Amino acid sequence: MQYGYFDNKKKEYLITQPDTPLPWINYLSNGKYCAMISNTGGGYSFYIDPRDLRILRYRYNNLPVDRPGRYIYIRDNHTSEYWSPTWQPVMKSLDSYECRHGLGYTKFSSSYQGIHTEILYFVPLEDNVEIWSLTVQNTSSERKELNIFSYAEFCLWSAISDQRDLQYIQNVAVAKYSEKNKAIFYHLFDLSTYVAFFSSNGNITSYDCDREAFIGDYRSEANPISVEKGRCGDSQALGGNPIAATCNKIVLNPNESKKIIFVLGVIKEKSQATQLLYKYEKFENVEIEFLKMKEAWDNYLKNLVAETPDKDFNSIINIWNPYQCKTTFDWARYVSFYETGIGRGIGFRDSNQDTLAVCHALPNQVHDRLIELAKNQFESGEVYHIYFPLTGKGGYPDYINPIMKFFGDDHLWLIFAVSNYLKETGDMSILEENIKYVEGSKEILYEHLKRAIRFTNNNTGPHGFPLIGTADWNDTLQLHGPNKQGESVMVAMQYHKALLDIDEIAKEFNRKNNFIEYNNLADKVKENINKNAWDGEWYIRAFDDDGEVIGSQNNEEGKIFLNTQSWAVFSKVASEERGLQCMDSVRNYLNTNYGIKLLYPPYTQFYPKMGGISTFPPGLKENASIFCHTNPWAEIAECILGRGDIAYEYYKKITPTTKNKIAEIHQTEPYIYSQMITGNDHPKFGSAKNSWLTGTASWTLKAATDWILGIRPQFHGLMIDPCIPKKWNKFRVIRYFRNAIYDITVQNPEHLSKGNARIRVDNIKQENNLVPIFKDGRKHIVEVKIEQ
Amino acid sequence: MQYGYFDNKKKEYLITQPDTPLPWINYLSNGKYCAMISNTGGGYSFYIDPRDLRILRYRYNNLPVDRPGRYIYIRDNHTSEYWSPTWQPVMKSLDSYECRHGLGYTKFSSSYQGIHTEILYFVPLEDNVEIWSLTVQNTSSERKELNIFSYAEFCLWSAISDQRDLQYIQNVAVAKYSEKNKAIFYHLFDLSTYVAFFSSNGNITSYDCDREAFIGDYRSEANPISVEKGRCGDSQALGGNPIAATCNKIVLNPNESKKIIFVLGVIKEKSQATQLLYKYEKFENVEIEFLKMKEAWDNYLKNLVAETPDKDFNSIINIWNPYQCKTTFDWARYVSFYETGIGRGIGFRDSNQDTLAVCHALPNQVHDRLIELAKNQFESGEVYHIYFPLTGKGGYPDYINPIMKFFGDDHLWLIFAVSNYLKETGDMSILEENIKYVEGSKEILYEHLKRAIRFTNNNTGPHGFPLIGTADWNDTLQLHGPNKQGESVMVAMQYHKALLDIDEIAKEFNRKNNFIEYNNLADKVKENINKNAWDGEWYIRAFDDDGEVIGSQNNEEGKIFLNTQSWAVFSKVASEERGLQCMDSVRNYLNTNYGIKLLYPPYTQFYPKMGGISTFPPGLKENASIFCHTNPWAEIAECILGRGDIAYEYYKKITPTTKNKIAEIHQTEPYIYSQMITGNDHPKFGSAKNSWLTGTASWTLKAATDWILGIRPQFHGLMIDPCIPKKWNKFRVIRYFRNAIYDITVQNPEHLSKGNARIRVDNIKQENNLVPIFKDGRKHIVEVKIEQ
Repeated sequence: MQYGYFDNKKKEYLITQPDTPLPWINYLSNGKYCAMISNTGGGYSFYIDPRDLRILRYRYNNLPVDRPGRYIYIRDNHTSEYWSPTWQPVMKSLDSYECRHGLGYTKFSSSYQGIHTEILYFVPLEDNVEIWSLTVQNTSSERKELNIFSYAEFCLWSAISDQRDLQYIQNVAVAKYSEKNKAIFYHLFDLSTYVAFFSSNGNITSYDCDREAFIGDYRSEANPISVEKGRCGDSQALGGNPIAATCNKIVLNPNESKKIIFVLGVIKEKSQATQLLYKYEKFENVEIEFLKMKEAWDNYLKNLVAETPDKDFNSIINIWNPYQCKTTFDWARYVSFYETGIGRGIGFRDSNQDTLAVCHALPNQVHDRLIELAKNQFESGEVYHIYFPLTGKGGYPDYINPIMKFFGDDHLWLIFAVSNYLKETGDMSILEENIKYVEGSKEILYEHLKRAIRFTNNNTGPHGFPLIGTADWNDTLQLHGPNKQGESVMVAMQYHKALLDIDEIAKEFNRKNNFIEYNNLADKVKENINKNAWDGEWYIRAFDDDGEVIGSQNNEEGKIFLNTQSWAVFSKVASEERGLQCMDSVRNYLNTNYGIKLLYPPYTQFYPKMGGISTFPPGLKENASIFCHTNPWAEIAECILGRGDIAYEYYKKITPTTKNKIAEIHQTEPYIYSQMITGNDHPKFGSAKNSWLTGTASWTLKAATDWILGIRPQFHGLMIDPCIPKKWNKFRVIRYFRNAIYDITVQNPEHLSKGNARIRVDNIKQENNLVPIFKDGRKHIVEVKIEQ
Repeated sequence: MQYGYFDNKKKEYLITQPDTPLPWINYLSNGKYCAMISNTGGGYSFYIDPRDLRILRYRYNNLPVDRPGRYIYIRDNHTSEYWSPTWQPVMKSLDSYECRHGLGYTKFSSSYQGIHTEILYFVPLEDNVEIWSLTVQNTSSERKELNIFSYAEFCLWSAISDQRDLQYIQNVAVAKYSEKNKAIFYHLFDLSTYVAFFSSNGNITSYDCDREAFIGDYRSEANPISVEKGRCGDSQALGGNPIAATCNKIVLNPNESKKIIFVLGVIKEKSQATQLLYKYEKFENVEIEFLKMKEAWDNYLKNLVAETPDKDFNSIINIWNPYQCKTTFDWARYVSFYETGIGRGIGFRDSNQDTLAVCHALPNQVHDRLIELAKNQFESGEVYHIYFPLTGKGGYPDYINPIMKFFGDDHLWLIFAVSNYLKETGDMSILEENIKYVEGSKEILYEHLKRAIRFTNNNTGPHGFPLIGTADWNDTLQLHGPNKQGESVMVAMQYHKALLDIDEIAKEFNRKNNFIEYNNLADKVKENINKNAWDGEWYIRAFDDDGEVIGSQNNEEGKIFLNTQSWAVFSKVASEERGLQCMDSVRNYLNTNYGIKLLYPPYTQFYPKMGGISTFPPGLKENASIFCHTNPWAEIAECILGRGDIAYEYYKKITPTTKNKIAEIHQTEPYIYSQMITGNDHPKFGSAKNSWLTGTASWTLKAATDWILGIRPQFHGLMIDPCIPKKWNKFRVIRYFRNAIYDITVQNPEHLSKGNARIRVDNIKQENNLVPIFKDGRKHIVEVKIEQ
């Protein structure tokens, strides 16, 4: 069943029915002020840090789902009827409804009893405000008198206190209407933290700052007493639950339409509101800011545009996947409708990965992020697992292994991210930047990378594999135990890849000794994996604290795991023969209609030695769900093995666009990836969970652009190495790279997946598949033909 | 406006209208299993610890208020109409409604369209279950076919995770219907923590374990799709939001009635359910357990029964106040509809105070609590501010002063509580019990008390007053600063009282040296207070970190504080002259129509040097609200000064019974005390907040029984020293004390407040007002006449 469709021309996803299986949301953000909004107006806002500077409150997991939000109520004063043009919260059956999620904005159009309404929500690029721009039109033949109510419920800045310290929070916050500013101001009585303000450029005829006054006893957002009565109570909030609610009266003749701008913003001091209120009472300023924001997104997207025979592929590659990548880059796994923004902080591993697929578009921001991340490294090479954006302070999650706090893989991701940055930008100077360790001492970034290698090298277990610590990429593979010797084969493979990457960096950075050292180390690691981790048809996953194998034929449950197969190929540990064999095993045991699951067979009971992974019912999360993040690694492996049709099949299976027609099964948004799709060992097979914030975003874009389309930045050029579906005749990619534009057309006359790429650049024949670096700001025509 | 009345015969408060200003709740508990329930069926449950073993979920501060709960839906299958006999959540206008909160149980009676329903909710004394006992009667003249639905929403045991780790919790819990047991079982997939079960003795025709299946998309508890359709979906929950919902079909002829028992319980292992399910499917067992529970409450209450000319006073003293005292003794300030049970733990100070007013009824439990509390003391004498009941582990709140973690007063409360226990029970052996300090070393309780004294003695500031540390009784008086020298005059007074108390204990415990030492120390403390803390008309409150005075004529705001006046008298620091003078100042500056406020004038802005106290808008919390806890201290002071009418006036001002007719102003329950009543510096003057969990419970009962009625246990007898309203002719008290029953009648023929008590015991004239200890298990007649 379908609830909407892609409007690629407008770069919008258009929702035609409000009661989607779950709230389908969008992020409106300038990177600091962030507003999440659902297709029925639900959602919340924060500034920089969703834990410490939460502006609007949200009731997660609520009944009814998705309350509260940025609500507008329209009341026809002749009939006393009222409704929500976003459907929620009043949920009257609208005569028409449409929600368009665009890049950085969401637009609603709806009609009810002769009134047509449009609302545009967005966050301007530079001001820390959110705009609700409302247009109301009288489409009836009668004069209409309407009361327009707005509603936003404030959160106590500290989102933790807001949930936990109920009897406290209701005694410290203040919201008052200022006649002078025609605005509601909300802040703590002690004026610590920030001030929020809310206003509209309409004539505010009444207002409420106190939730209970506006809503009324035993009522909800669905039927506020003020809206029912037709006017607010002019309440102030001295304690209680502060809100911003306003009422504007408008009269519309037939066909007449009127506009009102609502603005909600955050400032450090009250006096700073004046200028913003003045600016955003003008319609033309809202229009200017909206266009500026759209332009910024166009600039972001233009860096890589693909035109392939698969239109769905194009819309996801050119619009939605990079859009999601920017969101994960900004907020990691911290804050969504499923991540409450109070626990996790920004993940070190996550954030490194999130840089991968935005680096071509946002090199400066990635640069800054890498520096920030490196500050969370200890002198030992180990890193904090998480850090909090407002303070930059590192920390660990609750489930930390108190004896070995590190995660086996965390520190290695910095190498992958820096390598990706260097190849994309050529900016070797970053390696020379001095960055503090947690202890306070400083070294250049290159030394940070070396210490990451050293940490793994210094912390191996009885089989010579890296100690897993608290866990590895799989946070729930918690092989804690008294022997402190759980080992991760996956980390060993990542270590091998990290060694190859740093080896390449060392060469470019003229560190010959390191280069030789890392090369030798890599050989040893590879040999050990192939000797001690090959199970006959695939690679094992780990050794537990007693040295027993995990992920082997000999296990009764959890015989085969996906990640050590895809990474065996990706990390160049596997020979071609073993690579094909282990990826065939993936296909035999783990492939399902909705993607590749994480392991087979799932754990049917809890195993204390395994920890978290066996705390989930079969088919959920790390216990054999289709954990989407891991699927692109399998796609990359298949590309490396030259099996383009398989890679593409895997790619399509988890792609949101393919869920559009089965939205009632998939449940989450069909325009962005979710963390997981329930596996086929669970009765709800196919239903996705935890949308938006997932490493899938970055990796699936990388798999598509770098490996399927095969356009991969290298230190000395742009490599063209496609591995595509055989049926594709050709495709075209516009790619910005090192201050030049590459207009690449790939012809596939022989219908190969992979072949030799014969290349002409600006009509000059190339010797290999590495297109040169131009740095001339110009467009270069790259013609590619794939041949046997 | 009135929403109900006291039914003293039944020891019930009867609510006649469901839409009370706030949910009016009750605690159903055996001390381990605890279920809170509102007058509309809302509420939640936990086992031992509301943080780590939460059974039912609750959405605090919800819209609409008070969801979810223990819901029953009744659906008339002829009309398809459905309603809630508890009004919420369907909120149909019922033909009749009545909710009776009794001691340990809550009973609903309501009617709708020819169906009369009664539901009794209670928790048996020994089994960790809650019973919902339903009777449905057909009062119409037609045959009725009804579907009866039950609904309870589970919480993920860890209440913190349940709120915070949303995307995790929805993947780890399981609820399944067992055909064999005819019950729903709920637990984590890994079977860690506990198992909950839910069943009914009716014929379950369908069920749901998955919330979304029962409720339906974009619906709420008010209109579940299953109820609308007339049958559940037989869903299991493997992840998601587990619930227990059942459907029973019953057919009733005119006048016929049927009963169904629902049982929800917690067990360690599934197999333990069988016996409980078997037991509670029998109506007679439910009846037996209900009567046992009622008897237990009668036994608790019989220890002190007063009969005075003031009926409201009697009902609060004999029923509701001791009932509340038991609740605060069990749960301190940890868990209510306003305390979320995830932050605070059990307060050290709080819990000591909570023993004061239950000690005469529950001496063994108080004994155990005192031992548990003493374990939270360090060798220095300092104590943890809080501890968690499941583990006994101590800790500190978030706002702790990292340099001086202690609270100036905490450790001293152990002396007050032990003194009270000794005088009540005569059990001197407790002083010889060996108890560990936090560090692990052990000493007898008496030495713990000595170390408490030593701690204060070792930690004084420049004026010789005790350092305040993080704060004192007033948690928000946070005089932190670089000089580490904030001093508390209130603690000095408490210290003086503690010295007098330990001095008395030392004498009884034959520690002559200590006795002399403490006596001398007390004299010095008293002298210092009278020298350095007298402001002319009252005592100052504290010195801040710069040595500046707080609570003086010379301050612009916060000139006078209540506590250092009442404690000056209570602690015997003030001479009679100064006592009268400072309590007159209280009357002049702090007395309002709804009680005595904490200070005058309130702080109108934040003062960093003052901390928390100035973070509240004027009139709220510690910034000049009527903080109820402190009012009984003023009542005691007035009793000591002999001003019985004033004491009684103060007593009545905050007594819940006096709020019954102004419930729309007072808002919270008129049968129990709230933490605070909004002060007259706030527009919502008179509205109470944070009901149930407050030190007011203990202290106000002590003020009433020990000081107004004046019946005070002493080491060597029961003192009779009333200070009553002049207009009272007489009163009678039945008091259990040291294994004897004292039937005390006090005559007041001269209409005095206080006088000489001429006493006859069993017809024998006494020499003083100390009635002897009998320990003979018998009743003794005590006749008292008050004379000039």
